[in-house]
Amino acid sequence: MELINGNQIAQQVTEELANEIRALPENQRPKVAFVRVGEDPASVSYVRKKEKTAAAVGIDSELHLFPEDISREDLFAEIDRLNADPSIHGILVQSPLPSHIPDQEAFDRVSAEKDVDGFHKVNLGKLCQEDSSGFVACTPSGVIEMLDRTGINIPGKHVVIVGRSLIVGKPLSLLFLRRDPLGDATVTVCHSKTPNLEEITRQADILVAAVGRPGIIRGHMVKPGATVIDVGINRVEDSSRKSGYALKGDVNFEEVEQVAAHLTPVPGGVGPMTVAMLMKNTYKAFQLAGDRA
Amino acid sequence: MELINGNQIAQQVTEELANEIRALPENQRPKVAFVRVGEDPASVSYVRKKEKTAAAVGIDSELHLFPEDISREDLFAEIDRLNADPSIHGILVQSPLPSHIPDQEAFDRVSAEKDVDGFHKVNLGKLCQEDSSGFVACTPSGVIEMLDRTGINIPGKHVVIVGRSLIVGKPLSLLFLRRDPLGDATVTVCHSKTPNLEEITRQADILVAAVGRPGIIRGHMVKPGATVIDVGINRVEDSSRKSGYALKGDVNFEEVEQVAAHLTPVPGGVGPMTVAMLMKNTYKAFQLAGDRA
Repeated sequence: MELINGNQIAQQVTEELANEIRALPENQRPKVAFVRVGEDPASVSYVRKKEKTAAAVGIDSELHLFPEDISREDLFAEIDRLNADPSIHGILVQSPLPSHIPDQEAFDRVSAEKDVDGFHKVNLGKLCQEDSSGFVACTPSGVIEMLDRTGINIPGKHVVIVGRSLIVGKPLSLLFLRRDPLGDATVTVCHSKTPNLEEITRQADILVAAVGRPGIIRGHMVKPGATVIDVGINRVEDSSRKSGYALKGDVNFEEVEQVAAHLTPVPGGVGPMTVAMLMKNTYKAFQLAGDRA
Repeated sequence: MELINGNQIAQQVTEELANEIRALPENQRPKVAFVRVGEDPASVSYVRKKEKTAAAVGIDSELHLFPEDISREDLFAEIDRLNADPSIHGILVQSPLPSHIPDQEAFDRVSAEKDVDGFHKVNLGKLCQEDSSGFVACTPSGVIEMLDRTGINIPGKHVVIVGRSLIVGKPLSLLFLRRDPLGDATVTVCHSKTPNLEEITRQADILVAAVGRPGIIRGHMVKPGATVIDVGINRVEDSSRKSGYALKGDVNFEEVEQVAAHLTPVPGGVGPMTVAMLMKNTYKAFQLAGDRA
């Protein structure tokens, strides 16, 4: 079994990007705005990681923090301000937002040209249309990039995705279906209403777990020799750790490593790829803004 | 084997709609504009069928005909005019357009609020988001309506779609995946790059053929008792007919009727459903315009 090292691949991606940004004229730097509402610990840690990576690749960032009780109207006015600010190329609204502000409304409020998260309806539509001028959500595009850089062939493979979220499952299925050297797969999407999950997952040449339930992909559910991509990042109580929790994927690692040919760990698998792809999207937003100017 | 009678189901749909429209105040009628470029015989016949059905349900229609050599700019100016005309609720640009005008650009030129074909990127994005305020393409929504009215249960079923077009395969896969009493299926999308097509199609509880190749779904590719939906409408030479051609589906009817429990014929299956759903979309566009006013 070969472990797919997400940290290492993400580092390759960000280093290549850092080289491109270093080559820009001195007064030209991509800039991303992070919008965070409240103090959800996971959100705090994700945004911090994104800020650090941005700094490392030479992307400027601004953090916009708002209290948990900010109104929908006020938050949207802040997003509008960032939309209108020509010095900002990308905007990321960290989810989940407090329950009085629907995540999807906030995602659609960000202008499609600055939607580096790829959650805006126009960018989802472009993904359906195989129009590469849009932004693709970072986790799905990170999965594809990871497979590509690991040398795993996609065309003609049977890809099974467990999970139908708007953030991962659906856009990833559209990516794998593209008429493209990194697409052309046969794609099955399973979810909580799939009665015979293991019959389906056992057919996968490439199995992607993106449900958010720790360890639900067991060894007997995986075809020998398959590539298994674990998108789940679940906080599981662990009193032996200072933090009080451990991060666990959707894959039962100990069982699946006996069966799979390639497997991503959690942490250190898809997570860093997501952050790296966010940087690529920000650089793309910067370039597109330049093309429009 | 029970034949699914698309003509009859479409008639139910349009009669229900006709009743609703009849109940509107006298000066309020939905209106759709058909845009046709050139004289492609299939397009001529499709648009004529749509005009007839509109008249039958009480929807006003206008036909806008343009010569094959109309420029992209001129056609788009005509679409802009229709977008701006408040008396027009829905706009349908009949494809295929001549090769100097990309279909997708024309579809995206129609304003999303009048896009009764459901091909605009904003409506595709809403479909991904399971936002029911958008328009869904008529053939995929017709397939769902047909299954519903035939009493075929969808949740938990394995749906296999052969074909990944933007017009049928992709939106249909998103519909079957919705968290909805008419969704919640496990969905596999196959296509020309699927190496082992029959292994996959034989797993389908509901098999949808949407590739545009006459008769490619053979009897041995179908699970006994499956529901088979034939979206293909292929013109096949037939010198015994006055027209010189016959319409054939993607399904080998003689073979598959021995195996399937439910099967749609061609013609008289999905085709009339597509036209009926166009009328439903036009009525929805009319209602949404009223809500906005």
